[in-house]
Amino acid sequence: MRVDIGNALREVATPGVAVDALDRLDAEVATAHETIAAGMANAEFGYASLNLPETTSPTGIRAAVADVDAEAVLTVGIGGSALGARTVTAALGESNHYVLDNVDPERTRRLLARLDLEKTAVNVVSRSGTTAETLANFLVVREAYESAGVDWTDRTVVTTGDAGPLARLADNRDLPRLAVPEGVPGRFAALSAVGLVPAALLGHDIEAVLAGAREAREGLTGSLHESPAYAYGAVTTALERRGAHINAVMPYAESLEPFAEWFAQLWAESLGKDGQGQTPARALGATDQHSQLQLYRAGRHDKVVTLIRARERADRSIPSTDVEGLAYLGDATLGDLLDAEFEATEASLAAADKPSVRIEIERIDEQGLGDLLFSCEAACVLAGELMGVETFTQPAVEWGKSAARGLLGAADTEEAAAVRDKRTYPIE
Amino acid sequence: MRVDIGNALREVATPGVAVDALDRLDAEVATAHETIAAGMANAEFGYASLNLPETTSPTGIRAAVADVDAEAVLTVGIGGSALGARTVTAALGESNHYVLDNVDPERTRRLLARLDLEKTAVNVVSRSGTTAETLANFLVVREAYESAGVDWTDRTVVTTGDAGPLARLADNRDLPRLAVPEGVPGRFAALSAVGLVPAALLGHDIEAVLAGAREAREGLTGSLHESPAYAYGAVTTALERRGAHINAVMPYAESLEPFAEWFAQLWAESLGKDGQGQTPARALGATDQHSQLQLYRAGRHDKVVTLIRARERADRSIPSTDVEGLAYLGDATLGDLLDAEFEATEASLAAADKPSVRIEIERIDEQGLGDLLFSCEAACVLAGELMGVETFTQPAVEWGKSAARGLLGAADTEEAAAVRDKRTYPIE
Repeated sequence: MRVDIGNALREVATPGVAVDALDRLDAEVATAHETIAAGMANAEFGYASLNLPETTSPTGIRAAVADVDAEAVLTVGIGGSALGARTVTAALGESNHYVLDNVDPERTRRLLARLDLEKTAVNVVSRSGTTAETLANFLVVREAYESAGVDWTDRTVVTTGDAGPLARLADNRDLPRLAVPEGVPGRFAALSAVGLVPAALLGHDIEAVLAGAREAREGLTGSLHESPAYAYGAVTTALERRGAHINAVMPYAESLEPFAEWFAQLWAESLGKDGQGQTPARALGATDQHSQLQLYRAGRHDKVVTLIRARERADRSIPSTDVEGLAYLGDATLGDLLDAEFEATEASLAAADKPSVRIEIERIDEQGLGDLLFSCEAACVLAGELMGVETFTQPAVEWGKSAARGLLGAADTEEAAAVRDKRTYPIE
Repeated sequence: MRVDIGNALREVATPGVAVDALDRLDAEVATAHETIAAGMANAEFGYASLNLPETTSPTGIRAAVADVDAEAVLTVGIGGSALGARTVTAALGESNHYVLDNVDPERTRRLLARLDLEKTAVNVVSRSGTTAETLANFLVVREAYESAGVDWTDRTVVTTGDAGPLARLADNRDLPRLAVPEGVPGRFAALSAVGLVPAALLGHDIEAVLAGAREAREGLTGSLHESPAYAYGAVTTALERRGAHINAVMPYAESLEPFAEWFAQLWAESLGKDGQGQTPARALGATDQHSQLQLYRAGRHDKVVTLIRARERADRSIPSTDVEGLAYLGDATLGDLLDAEFEATEASLAAADKPSVRIEIERIDEQGLGDLLFSCEAACVLAGELMGVETFTQPAVEWGKSAARGLLGAADTEEAAAVRDKRTYPIE
């Protein structure tokens, strides 16, 4: 990964980081890196995530899925149990990976009606094995297979923790079972079975994903001047301190649209704590130039825009035309147009005194993807250190879980009572 | 549409609106409504958008598409020329509407390879008829049809302005041509041919969409206490003034995911001006409870969360299970679970002193969708009046367009020169 922070400097944008502030920032990075490196060396909770490029066994994953013959995969999971897996397959151009990561009855019905269940593997993922949305969907999916006369036990792979209902079910039914790695929160688990099983089932080269991640891991040094991942984490944090409370993540590649969602979880759930944290806004280039760019240029100085692209890709020429005013298109390719728009958008933000950071990978392939995922995780861990938050926990989501359980009659919780006490002020 | 602002009140959340501030706000609404009503009566630029439920001719749209026989539709457009159309078909559960709204060569190639062109209509939309992304894609699409030996002129519908290359092309080739309505910016055009052609091609009841919108239009009075649309626009604006610089739009329905994107354009491009404007963050319930909720609850007090749901829907029961700890799921439906999570999330935000607004429609069908789209447009127009911005223009996007044209050699622009002068600070 290559990062260009030129347009995040104070000489270009507001907020911006002064060049001489980078040295002070780098001293903070050095200290944080010591903590991170020690955490990695001791495989401490959370920091263990950054060891996955070394500790994940691609042969273990391949072995587990070897007997499952499928043309399509249906992942049943939510949050970190779905976003990484979808990010990987989408980036690799795979269109046969479906995800049930919501409990919308209409969506579940429509999707199950569309799939050829005979040819579809089920990939169910939940660390605890009790995640309400995932288990509810899994029960519905099982029933759909049974109704269709298709044996789900022949084509289901389970990824879960050591104990819990899903682990027991897998063992009772003799299903392939993979482990959610110890000490790795779901949103940091893309480079484990949690993120790689669907790609493996569909025949993609998961070794190369891990190889790309390993290379990025080796590039983690104690300085932002040497490590693109740390440069990104440090500069976005410095901008956050100066008022950039929003991070608009804008890949110029449709196949990275799920990546932006994955990044949004990583950033929000890790750093959104103690009254801090940038709000991720998911955007897509060039499409959102026709939607969000007006705001990014003319709105508040409260955003940094993260522009992401690959330096190489397959291209497609634009047929020439004699239509007046459009001849220039016929001399170009779609890729030329996309690149011109990328650079134009970046410069247009600078011209409006708004900061952006440019991230580039070589190519959107297994290697490039592993690099990108790992680097963003390292950037996030660094940002958490610089901000002084507990990067690897998500305590604020428990309240709602308890309330929902109470409303469904699983327990008599005080949170459910609070729901019933809602202040209403309706207008209809 | 029904709006509940209870959880946006100061007694519940920070920022929040004091109950006695609502009367002062309502006086502003009354004044703004006079401007809006006059603009509608005179069909002034922009305000004319709010007349579309009356002025759009569904029979005209039906007549134009009557001879096009297609099982699928490929829309070629970008921004407002794509988002509304996609929002409408997605909400109606349609899975045969594809959109090319980017110039990513890989995506274009993959999509064209997947479609059965014999059975796919092309819906090309550009007011000027010169939008670079749209015209480039349309040239590529035409070539793909020709390569496949399929006559694109038999199955292409054009929606464009009175003049320009697309209008001429449509006339030369005798293609059905529909008008982008006068005085209506693209992002406000969903309730015209711009948003309704794909739904009409695929046999949906566009009359009912317009009927739902008409009903909402009739509900626009001069008071936020009587008009849900104005209540939403006024309260979000009041919260913006008090520090809610982000509007996280979170429908609890997968079929409204494109709606959140449509809303994001409406809000960002209309209100992101003069250093103001809420940044829309697109979320999805219940999925994003496992991604964004940690931040929404524990992050800065700089957000309002807009929670959207339908009061009725088709449902699906969850099969009962004897798995320990999960029995409670078997007594419920997926819809019960979704509703419990909706209410739990709403209450969990209040418990964290964070504001939210609840929007409900009866059902996600043609009628409910027309209501929702129109009401959000009216809310946005009201917000623009209260903020004192030029709601209907988007001047800040011109810089980048000029730069991109320059980079592609269409003209020698100073913006392109600025791109070439970029300040770089690479880390690799």
